[in-house]
Amino acid sequence: MTTAKRDTYTPETLLSVAVQVFNERGYDGTSMEHLSKAAGISKSSIYHHVAGKEELLRRAVSRALDGLFGILEEPGAVRGRAVERVEYVTRRTVEVLVGELPYVTLLLRVRGNTRTERWALERRREFDHQVADLLGAAAAEGDLRADVDIRLATRLLFGMVNSLVEWYRPHPGAGHAQLADAVVHLAFDGLRTTR
Amino acid sequence: MTTAKRDTYTPETLLSVAVQVFNERGYDGTSMEHLSKAAGISKSSIYHHVAGKEELLRRAVSRALDGLFGILEEPGAVRGRAVERVEYVTRRTVEVLVGELPYVTLLLRVRGNTRTERWALERRREFDHQVADLLGAAAAEGDLRADVDIRLATRLLFGMVNSLVEWYRPHPGAGHAQLADAVVHLAFDGLRTTR
Repeated sequence: MTTAKRDTYTPETLLSVAVQVFNERGYDGTSMEHLSKAAGISKSSIYHHVAGKEELLRRAVSRALDGLFGILEEPGAVRGRAVERVEYVTRRTVEVLVGELPYVTLLLRVRGNTRTERWALERRREFDHQVADLLGAAAAEGDLRADVDIRLATRLLFGMVNSLVEWYRPHPGAGHAQLADAVVHLAFDGLRTTR
Repeated sequence: MTTAKRDTYTPETLLSVAVQVFNERGYDGTSMEHLSKAAGISKSSIYHHVAGKEELLRRAVSRALDGLFGILEEPGAVRGRAVERVEYVTRRTVEVLVGELPYVTLLLRVRGNTRTERWALERRREFDHQVADLLGAAAAEGDLRADVDIRLATRLLFGMVNSLVEWYRPHPGAGHAQLADAVVHLAFDGLRTTR
């Protein structure tokens, strides 16, 4: 049934396999040969779908970036006090990260050796800047502690959120709302009992 | 002056070079040839100091682990309320991480392919467990919010702290106290103005 198996291949399933291989071997360490073996189809079949591995990388990180930038256009991110908007964005970032786990994992591991990687890094920085601006606005509205260094807080917030790709493994059928709540609560209210 | 240069090599300087190469190429991707080139000494000179690259890895991660476990025996970590002890341990973990940045970076990137790597992972988990126990004790003493999931909070706390190895670059002569304060303040008090 090899032929039938080949026929079932779509750009989408190829992308899913490629992302898995990229995350396991690193993008630099992945050859078209590795992709061909993992997908169980010939290299020429892969070239029928895409120009090469960089196109697969671009499609994969685009999926992650589209998910992240989409958050910034949702009503919760554009209306209300800045502190509420940045909490909303934090919560949704966790949800997108967990919902698109392999794609965001790949995005966070991009190193900058190719044009596509440098573009992805630039877009990541742009997302971080937009969240930093929201945190700055929340501070200006008096809703963040006065001693908060916005740039440092942004780094620490993303450090915590992005660490999820290293250790969080979703359970089938489980929602991510509880996890997102825990992250937002820790970051904005802290662990300690309010005194 | 090649001979004089060779004479200046000590196990300590060799370790420092090896850690840098391990962090750049990954431990798996580093050969004795790479180490020899980076150190500017022959492979046989390296074997004069150490049995092989796994011994260099063991020494390097031991330095990081000794620094981290040393914290748990300091007075601030063993006396007082649990919440104060866990805050102290968090603060000191940031300081050790930044003070021993290349060594802790290597420790955090260990993957588990060799016996030494598996030992290092086991020790890391042991450290995390001890901090989780302290967080649990702080919750039992009523000093942490009742809704905090201790296991998740430990993961998020270390996610934030460990992210420092990816983006923090120390300035010569600068203290790390301000950074450590920011981490502790964010984790325990949150970003938001207390209402």
